[in-house]
Amino acid sequence: MFPVTGARTVKTYLECIPCFLRQALEASRMATHDDGVQAKIIRRVLRETANFSFSLSPPHMGQKIHRIVREETGDPDPYRAEKLRYNMLYAQIYPQAKKMVARSENPRDSALKLAVASNVLDFGPPGFNLGSKIGSILESALSEELAIDDRASFWRTMEKAEEILYLGDNTGEVFFDRLLLEHLPVEKVTFVVRGGPAINDITMGDLDDTGLNGFVSVVDNGSDAPGTILEDCSPEFRQRFEAADLIISKGQGNYETLSGIDKHIFYLLKAKCPVLARDLDVAEGSLVVKEVLPKAV
Amino acid sequence: MFPVTGARTVKTYLECIPCFLRQALEASRMATHDDGVQAKIIRRVLRETANFSFSLSPPHMGQKIHRIVREETGDPDPYRAEKLRYNMLYAQIYPQAKKMVARSENPRDSALKLAVASNVLDFGPPGFNLGSKIGSILESALSEELAIDDRASFWRTMEKAEEILYLGDNTGEVFFDRLLLEHLPVEKVTFVVRGGPAINDITMGDLDDTGLNGFVSVVDNGSDAPGTILEDCSPEFRQRFEAADLIISKGQGNYETLSGIDKHIFYLLKAKCPVLARDLDVAEGSLVVKEVLPKAV
Repeated sequence: MFPVTGARTVKTYLECIPCFLRQALEASRMATHDDGVQAKIIRRVLRETANFSFSLSPPHMGQKIHRIVREETGDPDPYRAEKLRYNMLYAQIYPQAKKMVARSENPRDSALKLAVASNVLDFGPPGFNLGSKIGSILESALSEELAIDDRASFWRTMEKAEEILYLGDNTGEVFFDRLLLEHLPVEKVTFVVRGGPAINDITMGDLDDTGLNGFVSVVDNGSDAPGTILEDCSPEFRQRFEAADLIISKGQGNYETLSGIDKHIFYLLKAKCPVLARDLDVAEGSLVVKEVLPKAV
Repeated sequence: MFPVTGARTVKTYLECIPCFLRQALEASRMATHDDGVQAKIIRRVLRETANFSFSLSPPHMGQKIHRIVREETGDPDPYRAEKLRYNMLYAQIYPQAKKMVARSENPRDSALKLAVASNVLDFGPPGFNLGSKIGSILESALSEELAIDDRASFWRTMEKAEEILYLGDNTGEVFFDRLLLEHLPVEKVTFVVRGGPAINDITMGDLDDTGLNGFVSVVDNGSDAPGTILEDCSPEFRQRFEAADLIISKGQGNYETLSGIDKHIFYLLKAKCPVLARDLDVAEGSLVVKEVLPKAV
């Protein structure tokens, strides 16, 4: 079996603590308007955090936080509406993105860049006129530079790989994952979603009407962590992970939980916080396509 | 004796919680480079916050946080160097501010505005060339509008008041408090500092070389809270507070702890956070000169 213990993941730094509380507050407000329940959630999260081992990764704590929110509110998926909104926004932007990619100088590189940048597209507040902004949103995403740029190796590797796992991240951006998948050997790819609700991360239920199911084979990882905590995933998923000769890992949560794992991985992400930026030695906000090779073969 | 219990102060909102942790982290880093000690502080603050009564004001929690930091690090005044730096920066800017005020159309109004704005002058990172920036720092402070503007009443009231307490806030800006004091009936004013170190708030020890001692009579309030928690202040200070017919209250911490107290108070502050801005019904970042009258006389 794949050795999942002892691997170095991104540990929790003290800077993550205020952020945990901010996240807990956001999620509790998403799930209930009852400020008594919100306060109860925050007090539980404070106690859990006080006892949390900082040698674990931030998504370990994220999993605890969002379980507390679900338990205290009875809402099995507090981000459901938010996720639907994002799927709808990306659905509107996808056709134009696809055209833009096709007309670009290097379509597959453009698709890759959009998949990375899609982690954090700025759609503005609910109710604004998306139609008039799509062009500028896409152009600014496409014009961003990559701070770590292993694209050349990414494409070379794709040709040789036999079994590829594509670990998804957020709902909505799944449309741009599809844009990238259209340039990958899709018959060799399995797309992976979370096994249960975790913030706005993609789950099986969030794939409805996105067109991804049917286009690529999809499995869930059996875990409700906002990352890929292998020891928390299902045995079936761990077997697939072990068998795959290449992993495409989307987003910060997957990086934080997998970095240090002995595997051939391409990390596609935006370094959204100072802790991760420091770990990757890039500026905060940087776009990254980073290859990590397995140790000895 | 002055009735200090039952008064409505600004209570702690859930949004304050991540901010408490951010503050605790900042203070622990100011006090020690030992990340084991920092982690111990954060865990203690998490536990204290979990048990904190949210009907108390944020400075109540601030006091607990900074006591924990001092206890765990053995550093009696972690912000000492920071405070010295700010005194030095304001000392450099003061002469030009004084000239600018004197030359302005309404000198005393300008002095009042600078005293309010001085709460948060942006000096940039350590090591930058202050000399070349002083003019623009002052001009932008003077050109800011007041979101609540009780200046007219402020000056009328000053003439009639017989015993005025001026509650100071941060070190550094004390130079701009002096600028305002130069336009007040200083013989009737007592300037109040904190009774012990509380973040970067002004204490007796921080007045050295500022020229304030000698210019105005100064007392400390006997408390190490970053605000004015009357029940935590010395009996001597509470007697003075009761006897005074007018209070000038500088900064957010004093407002949070005194708002609702039955007293004639002018609050001079910048609404630095969304919670306070909401309480005052102004935009975040607004400058405020707000008069609150005592109930029945």
